[in-house]
Amino acid sequence: MRAALALLAAATALSAVPASARDDVTHKICSPNERLCFTLTTADEIPTYSVTRDGKPVIAPSRLGFMLRGDGKFEHSTALGEASFAQADTRWEQPWGENRWVRDHYREMRVPIVELIGGKRRIDLIARVFDDGVGFRFAFPDQPNLKDVRIDEELTEFTIAGEAEAWWITAGEWNRYEFLYNRTPAKQVGTAHTPISFRRKDDSLHIAIHEAALVDYSAFWLQRIDGQRFRTRLSPSSDGWKVRRAAPFETPWRTILIADDAPKLYAASDIILNLNEPNKLGDVSWVKPQKYIGIWWAMHLDQSSWHSGPKHGATTANTIRHIDFAAKHGFDAVLVEGWNVGWDGNWIGDHGRNFNFAQAYPDFDMDRVAAHAKVKGVAIMGHHETAGNSGLYAEQLEAAMDYYAKHGVPSVKTGYVADAGGVLHKDAAGKEIWDWHDGQWQVRHHLEVVLAAAKRRIAINAHEPVKDTGLRRTYPNWVSREGAKGMEYQAWGDPPNPPEHEPTLVFTRMLSGPMDFTPGIVSLTGKGGREIPSTLARQLANFVVIYSPVQMAADLPENYDKHPAAFEFIKRVPADWEQSRVLAGAIGDYAVFARQRRGGQDWYVGGVTDEAAREVTLDFAFLPKGKTFAAKIWRDGPGGGVGGDRFAMTVEEKKVTAATKWPIRMEAGGGFAIVLTPVR
Amino acid sequence: MRAALALLAAATALSAVPASARDDVTHKICSPNERLCFTLTTADEIPTYSVTRDGKPVIAPSRLGFMLRGDGKFEHSTALGEASFAQADTRWEQPWGENRWVRDHYREMRVPIVELIGGKRRIDLIARVFDDGVGFRFAFPDQPNLKDVRIDEELTEFTIAGEAEAWWITAGEWNRYEFLYNRTPAKQVGTAHTPISFRRKDDSLHIAIHEAALVDYSAFWLQRIDGQRFRTRLSPSSDGWKVRRAAPFETPWRTILIADDAPKLYAASDIILNLNEPNKLGDVSWVKPQKYIGIWWAMHLDQSSWHSGPKHGATTANTIRHIDFAAKHGFDAVLVEGWNVGWDGNWIGDHGRNFNFAQAYPDFDMDRVAAHAKVKGVAIMGHHETAGNSGLYAEQLEAAMDYYAKHGVPSVKTGYVADAGGVLHKDAAGKEIWDWHDGQWQVRHHLEVVLAAAKRRIAINAHEPVKDTGLRRTYPNWVSREGAKGMEYQAWGDPPNPPEHEPTLVFTRMLSGPMDFTPGIVSLTGKGGREIPSTLARQLANFVVIYSPVQMAADLPENYDKHPAAFEFIKRVPADWEQSRVLAGAIGDYAVFARQRRGGQDWYVGGVTDEAAREVTLDFAFLPKGKTFAAKIWRDGPGGGVGGDRFAMTVEEKKVTAATKWPIRMEAGGGFAIVLTPVR
Repeated sequence: MRAALALLAAATALSAVPASARDDVTHKICSPNERLCFTLTTADEIPTYSVTRDGKPVIAPSRLGFMLRGDGKFEHSTALGEASFAQADTRWEQPWGENRWVRDHYREMRVPIVELIGGKRRIDLIARVFDDGVGFRFAFPDQPNLKDVRIDEELTEFTIAGEAEAWWITAGEWNRYEFLYNRTPAKQVGTAHTPISFRRKDDSLHIAIHEAALVDYSAFWLQRIDGQRFRTRLSPSSDGWKVRRAAPFETPWRTILIADDAPKLYAASDIILNLNEPNKLGDVSWVKPQKYIGIWWAMHLDQSSWHSGPKHGATTANTIRHIDFAAKHGFDAVLVEGWNVGWDGNWIGDHGRNFNFAQAYPDFDMDRVAAHAKVKGVAIMGHHETAGNSGLYAEQLEAAMDYYAKHGVPSVKTGYVADAGGVLHKDAAGKEIWDWHDGQWQVRHHLEVVLAAAKRRIAINAHEPVKDTGLRRTYPNWVSREGAKGMEYQAWGDPPNPPEHEPTLVFTRMLSGPMDFTPGIVSLTGKGGREIPSTLARQLANFVVIYSPVQMAADLPENYDKHPAAFEFIKRVPADWEQSRVLAGAIGDYAVFARQRRGGQDWYVGGVTDEAAREVTLDFAFLPKGKTFAAKIWRDGPGGGVGGDRFAMTVEEKKVTAATKWPIRMEAGGGFAIVLTPVR
Repeated sequence: MRAALALLAAATALSAVPASARDDVTHKICSPNERLCFTLTTADEIPTYSVTRDGKPVIAPSRLGFMLRGDGKFEHSTALGEASFAQADTRWEQPWGENRWVRDHYREMRVPIVELIGGKRRIDLIARVFDDGVGFRFAFPDQPNLKDVRIDEELTEFTIAGEAEAWWITAGEWNRYEFLYNRTPAKQVGTAHTPISFRRKDDSLHIAIHEAALVDYSAFWLQRIDGQRFRTRLSPSSDGWKVRRAAPFETPWRTILIADDAPKLYAASDIILNLNEPNKLGDVSWVKPQKYIGIWWAMHLDQSSWHSGPKHGATTANTIRHIDFAAKHGFDAVLVEGWNVGWDGNWIGDHGRNFNFAQAYPDFDMDRVAAHAKVKGVAIMGHHETAGNSGLYAEQLEAAMDYYAKHGVPSVKTGYVADAGGVLHKDAAGKEIWDWHDGQWQVRHHLEVVLAAAKRRIAINAHEPVKDTGLRRTYPNWVSREGAKGMEYQAWGDPPNPPEHEPTLVFTRMLSGPMDFTPGIVSLTGKGGREIPSTLARQLANFVVIYSPVQMAADLPENYDKHPAAFEFIKRVPADWEQSRVLAGAIGDYAVFARQRRGGQDWYVGGVTDEAAREVTLDFAFLPKGKTFAAKIWRDGPGGGVGGDRFAMTVEEKKVTAATKWPIRMEAGGGFAIVLTPVR
C-alpha cells in the first residue's frame, strides 16, 4: 500500500505545506558554451538533479541526500530556496605539471535545500558547470540544528542515461586500489572506486565520475543500486559515522567529466584541479620534479631484501653505487628503501610496530650517504614505509621529517602496505583503533604528513595512498601517488598486468592525477626470470604516457648498461612539461601522448597499445608551424611484440614539421617513443 | 606493491605464528544424503566457506567476517579451532500452515574462528546442512574482549558458482519491499533484498539466499561486489553501528536453498522454518486461520476514505453491513480500516503523530459493532496503522491491545506506511529518532508488538513489515505479513502488477513465509474504472497459489454478489492446510499448487501464468490411490485472458483419480482453480 495513500495524503495536506514546497521549483545552470546543463529540482520533495548535453540526458534525474546521525535522513520533505549565480574565466600557472597553464572556465549556481519538517535544516548545493564536465558539492551552513555534523552516509546518486560500458576497479576489498580493471556493461558494475569511466553505446559519449578536493571527509565508493543507477557509499570509519565535521563546512566536489572521446575525457580532467583551492603553501619553487633510480626493483626480484641480513639492499656501499650511477647518467635522485630499522620479522603482520623512522640500520650510514650524494649533485629520495601503522608514523612524524631535512632529503616516498586490517592508530587512552584506507581519519593523516613535510621543504610521494583528488594544486609538495597496480606486478603479479593495463589506467586512474608507476624495466624480466608482457619500446613510451613529476627509471643499473639504446631515451625524457596533448586513444585499447618539456622547445611522444598490434597515424600538427624538428624514434622492431621478440626495437631518425603525418606501428603489447628537437 | 611483500613477510615470520595458523585447517559437513557439502577453511588466514552439490561448486569460496566497533575487523589473521558435530531428524507439527508436519533433517558443524592477533577474539560458525540447502550463523561466545558487541557491518559473502540469472528487488530505497521484481543476469544485480532467487544457466540449478530467525539484529541486504560475488550489508541504524548486542548471542541464520527446479526450491523453504526455534508461546490453539473481508478496497478505489467526513468507510453502519455479508457467506472476520482517530490531515507527512489506537471516530461505535459481530459469529479484524511512527505505537501498545482484547478482537493488521523518512521513535529524553524499516530497532519493535498481542491472544498480520524469516514457528500468532506489492497496486499502481508478478512472488518473496496479498478482486476493475490485467479465474487461483493463513476476499461485497460462480470458489477455499504441493512452475512464468484442507479430505488446486498463455498437464498423482474425486474447475474460458475477455470463465465438473492426467489451459495473465472432493 503506497502510492495511493501518498496521493490521498498529499491532497488533504496541501494547505499545511508552504507554497514553495507545492511547486517543484527548478534551478538550472549551463556551461559557458551552453551545451552542458545542470538542473536541480525536487521530485516528491526529494532533491533531484540531472545533467544534459545538447539537450539530451547524460545523468538522468538522480537523488541527493544524507543520512545524518541523530536527526534522520536529510532527503525527503525538502524544498529549494532561491538560487544565486556566479561565473569565472581565469588562467592559473602550475608550479609543475602536465601543462604550465590551466584555464578555469565555468558558471556556478548555489541553491539552498531546506527541510520543510523537523529541524528545518538547510544544506546548500553548489554546482559548477564547465564545457566538459560538472562539479557539485554540498555546503553545510552554520545553523542551530546542524552544528556537530555526523554523516552516516551520503546519498548522492548518479544515474547514467543511455546504455554504457564501464571500466572500474572493485571497492571495499583490501584497503587499496591495486586491482586489474574490470570492463563490463555499466549495469554489471558492483561496488567501484572512482574514477570510474563510462562509454555510452549509441553515441560513444565518455563519462567519468570522481571527486575533487577530498579534505577532512571520507572518500566515496560508487555502489550500483540497480540498472545504471549508482549511489555514493562513504568509506567506513571506526567511529561508525563516516564523517564528523563542525559546520560550516563543504563536502568534496562530486565530479562528472563528459567528453566525446577518450582523449577529450583526459583533457577534461583539468576540472579536478580547477575545483581544488589554489596553492596554500606560498613559494614552492623548492618542489622539483625528479627523475630517479632506486634500491627497489632488486627487492621485487628477491635479489635484495628490505630487512637486514646478507641480502640487505640499503647498505652504504650499494647506495653510493646507485648515487654514482645516477650522477653519471643525469638522474636527480636515488630512492633508498629498507634503510631504517623495523623491517625484520613479519613487518606486515605486525603492522609496522617496530618501524623507527629516524634510525638507520647499522650498515646504512646516512651521514656518509648524504655527504656523497651532495658532492655528486644527486638527491636522496627518502622512504617511510608504515605498514599501515599511520598512528605510529604520526607519533614519529616530526622526528622523521627532521631527520630527512637534516640530511638534505627533498622528497619522501611514503607507504601504507596494509591489507585486510586497515590503518592503525591509537586513541587518547592508547587503545589501538583500526580505520579504513580512504576514510576520514586517513584522509586527515595524509594531509598532516604533507604539511609536516612542507614545513621542511620536502615533497611527498604516497604509495598505498588515498585516491588523488587534485590536492596537488593546493599542496604542490604532494607530488605523486601510487594508488593502482604499478610495475612491481610485472615482477611477481599473478597474473602480471596485461598489455591493456596502461591504456586503461590512462583513462581511469590517471584522470585523478599523477601516478608513480615506476616504468623503465628494460630487462623485461621479473622475479625468477619471468618474461614481462611488454616490449622494450613500450617501456620507454610509459615515461610519456603515464604522467608523474617524480618519474622512476625502475630497472637495475646493470640492466641499463645492457640496453644503451633504450637508456638514451630514458635519460633524455623530462618529468615536467610545458604542455601535454592526448593525440589518440581508446579506453583499454591504446593511448598516444605528446608533451613539451617545461621551458623547452623539445617534444616527446609516446604510445602504448593493448594485446592488439595496431598502426596509428601520428599527426604532428601540435608542433609550431614553419619549424622543422629532428625526430628520433624508438619503436617495436620487425618480429617484435609480446609473443614475439619483445626486445626487437627499431631506432631511427627523421625530420618532421607541423604538416607531417606518419603511420606508426605498435606490435602486440608494444609501443613507441619519440624525441622531437627543433632543428634550428 | 602487495603480493610479493606479503610473501616475503610470511617467509620471515613463520616462526612467530602458532602452528595452527600455518596450516589451512579445513572442516567439512555434508547433508544427510551426502550430496550437499559445506566446507569451512581459512585462505590467507581469512575465514572462507564454500558449498558443493555432488562435488560441484554451488557457492565458490566466499569470505566471512565482521567489522566490529572499537577493535577493527574480525576477518583476517584468523585460524580455525576444533570442529564439533551434531545431527537431527525430527518431525514437528505446525499449529497452522501449509503443511501440518515438517521434517527437520540435517547435520550440523560448529567451528570456532579465533583471531591470532590483538584481542584474540573468537566467533563460532554453526552450519546446518540439509538435503536441499544450508543455513549458517555466527555465535559470539561470552569472552573478555568481546562483551558489548557493536557490529558496524557483517562481511558474509556469497559467490554464486556458475553463470546464473536472478530475480530480485532493489534494497535501500524507501523503507519497504514494494517493488516489481527485476529479472537480470546475476552479475547485473545491484543491491537486493532477500529472498533473492538464482537459476544457473548450465544446469538450471536453483539457489535462493535469505535469512532465518531475524531476532534482535538488523536485516541484511545483499550487495553485489563484482562478478557473481555478493556481500551482506546490514540495514542502517540511527546508532551508527548496525547491531548492538551483549555476548553471548547468535546471529540470524544465513540460508542458501538449493534445488533442481522452482517447485523444489519452494519445498526447500521449510529450511527457513526449521532454523527457527520451536513455539515459545505455549498453547496457541487460539490462533485461528481466517478468511476475511474488509473495509479496505473501497478506499483504494477512492470510493471511501480512511479519514473522517462524508466518505468515511469505517462507520458503524458500513461495518455492520460487512459483518452481515461475512456471516451470510461464511467468512471468519471483517477488517475495519480507518476506525480510529488520527487519519485526518497529512497523516503520512505528519508520521502518524495524531493516531490514537484506543479511540474510535465518533461515527464508529465499537461496542455496538463488537456486539453485533459476536451475535453473528464473525470476528472483527483490528487495524493499527502507524505511518511508521513505531515509537508512538509502542507507547500506546498496551492500551491499544487492551482495547481490542476488551472487544474480543482476535487479530490485528498493523501498518507502517513510511517512505523516505523511516520509522520514528524517541529516545529517553524525548528527542525524535529515525530508524530503518528493517534495522535492529524496528526488528525488536515488531517482536514487542507480537508479544504484547500474544499476551491477549491476538494474532498479528504486519503490513509494511520487516521481511519474514520464519518466526511464525516461534511466535505462531505472527500469522502473516505484507512485504511485497499486493493487490492494491492493481487499483492504482503505475504500472499495475504485471501477470508475471505472482509467478515471481511465489518463488522469491513467498520462500520467506505467508503474505497477506489480498486476492479476489472479481470485478477486475481498479480506481476510476481501470482494467486489472488479470482474469476472473486467476483471481480464484491466487487463493491457492499465494499462501496466507489470513486470506482476504478483497473485493466489495456488491461485486461478489455480481459474480456468484467465482464467489462460490472463494467461499469454499480454506486458509489452512494439511499438506501442500507445488505441482509445477518456473520463476516468473507460472506456478501450480495443490493443497489439502487441514483436517479434511478435499484438495484445492490453483495455477497462474504470466503474460503467456500456456497449457500445463495436471498430474493428480498427489491424490490418495484408489479414490475417486469430484473435481469442480474454474478456468479461463474461450477468448479469455488479458487482452481478451478477462471475465470469460468456464466452470465444469469432472471425476478424477490419482491416475488422472489432464491438460489445462491458462490464457495470457490467467489461471485456474479446482476443488477436489472425495466422492465417497
